[in-house]
Amino acid sequence: MPQRPIGVFDSGIGGMTVVRELLRVVPNERIIYFGDTARVPYGTKSVETVKRYAKEDTELLLGHNVKLIVIACNTVSAIAMEEVEHMADGIPVIGTINPCAREAVRVTKGKIGIIGTEATVASRAYELAIQEEAKRQSKLVETFAKACPLFVPLAEEGWIDHPASKLVAEEYLSVLKEAGVDTLILGCTHYPVLTDVIQEVMGSGVTLVNSGAVAAREVPKLISGLEANNNNPEHLVLVSDVPRKFQRIGERFLGRKLPEARQVLFKEAWVMGRDRVGEDILS
Amino acid sequence: MPQRPIGVFDSGIGGMTVVRELLRVVPNERIIYFGDTARVPYGTKSVETVKRYAKEDTELLLGHNVKLIVIACNTVSAIAMEEVEHMADGIPVIGTINPCAREAVRVTKGKIGIIGTEATVASRAYELAIQEEAKRQSKLVETFAKACPLFVPLAEEGWIDHPASKLVAEEYLSVLKEAGVDTLILGCTHYPVLTDVIQEVMGSGVTLVNSGAVAAREVPKLISGLEANNNNPEHLVLVSDVPRKFQRIGERFLGRKLPEARQVLFKEAWVMGRDRVGEDILS
Repeated sequence: MPQRPIGVFDSGIGGMTVVRELLRVVPNERIIYFGDTARVPYGTKSVETVKRYAKEDTELLLGHNVKLIVIACNTVSAIAMEEVEHMADGIPVIGTINPCAREAVRVTKGKIGIIGTEATVASRAYELAIQEEAKRQSKLVETFAKACPLFVPLAEEGWIDHPASKLVAEEYLSVLKEAGVDTLILGCTHYPVLTDVIQEVMGSGVTLVNSGAVAAREVPKLISGLEANNNNPEHLVLVSDVPRKFQRIGERFLGRKLPEARQVLFKEAWVMGRDRVGEDILS
Repeated sequence: MPQRPIGVFDSGIGGMTVVRELLRVVPNERIIYFGDTARVPYGTKSVETVKRYAKEDTELLLGHNVKLIVIACNTVSAIAMEEVEHMADGIPVIGTINPCAREAVRVTKGKIGIIGTEATVASRAYELAIQEEAKRQSKLVETFAKACPLFVPLAEEGWIDHPASKLVAEEYLSVLKEAGVDTLILGCTHYPVLTDVIQEVMGSGVTLVNSGAVAAREVPKLISGLEANNNNPEHLVLVSDVPRKFQRIGERFLGRKLPEARQVLFKEAWVMGRDRVGEDILS
């Protein structure tokens, strides 16, 4: 059991920011990363579709006999945590929401901002977890959330200090600034790439919480008693699109060389949904 | 045969700009539209994956017994035209590249700019079609292409006249302005939504070619002799994600009410690619 790998999955490349932290906190563990690059992004898609994808991704990792599943994707953590836990059937699962809510409540003076994809923000999962955690820590906390859909493509374009990124950040973040948040959860794995511009717009007094890094730091506790002792663990990176582009951008996110990514394919078969149209309109 | 519908497909919602034109030029035809909203976008994905998706989309439309296939998606038109034609097996197929190259060569004074997704620009399909067409029209034409990946999310956010959109447009288009293009192909179905800002940045002397509209105008010729005569044709809109969001944004693109969209689902099964990793690294 200890030699079994840790599984990490994400809608695409962003989860590499989680892997980056894992390599630091559990350096002797093998990691299997899956990025669903053929269907990315998840954050603009429906709850039903994200749940379906999350279950398929989990199945893929379970097939690799993992001892722990890390959901690097905030959208999946917000929407499909229960589905993943149910499938994992006793294998521990960690998402980004609870660790991050705990950390934000711990550091805040009372007003927490949350930024994420449309799906994450619409789920209100962070708000719920923060209020539960606030009760536990006996703190009074207010929350303010804002979806920032353009941050993902800006991060992927690498426009880290482009004036357009600043304008976009000002547009999205103004309502959080006006609300006077003192702590801001970067509730999407892509956002740490834009840390500088987000910090600049929010002001230096606001504490940024990197959701992926915070989640990764819970991993040592979760595998306590099941630690592997590989000196130079061979990691495995799987993607659903061909790996060319992943390799290049992934290394930017990871901050170091990636093991060569390999492609897994999936076969599809269209089935008509319940709403299949009657034959009447087709001749 | 004449009563069979016209099939249109796109990676998502953008193809509605093509449908908009079809409703004008062939008002008595039934249209079946498929938008692959569960896997959108295509333009950032690999050639291999786009080809696979295009074949699956074509199969879906063929299952609805269409008499013509309109590829509304520039990325698919640039990359997978042959695959779609091969599957269509005699049923006519029209993409955006050739009609649009013909129109651009017709109107240009000699310098044509092309903007599109990363995949479309990397394919060089427009350049090739333009040079063939230039030979046919005995004109000397130079081409300049630029991928504009942020235009799609900006159009979907509806930031039609936001200062950030102008900054992004200036960044992307500066190389085309400097090259002195007199004609610019909007080589992605999303871009017409940003026409005003693109025209402003390029200057009023530059002619914009709306690829989807130009392609749609070829349809009457292609169904000559096979025209339907429906007075009030019942169109059908199919999507792969749940239709809620599609309905709202689709109506912005279409400029009028949409028939209720229906979902088709697909079942997936992961299969390991050729690069399947050896069992050695898994315990």
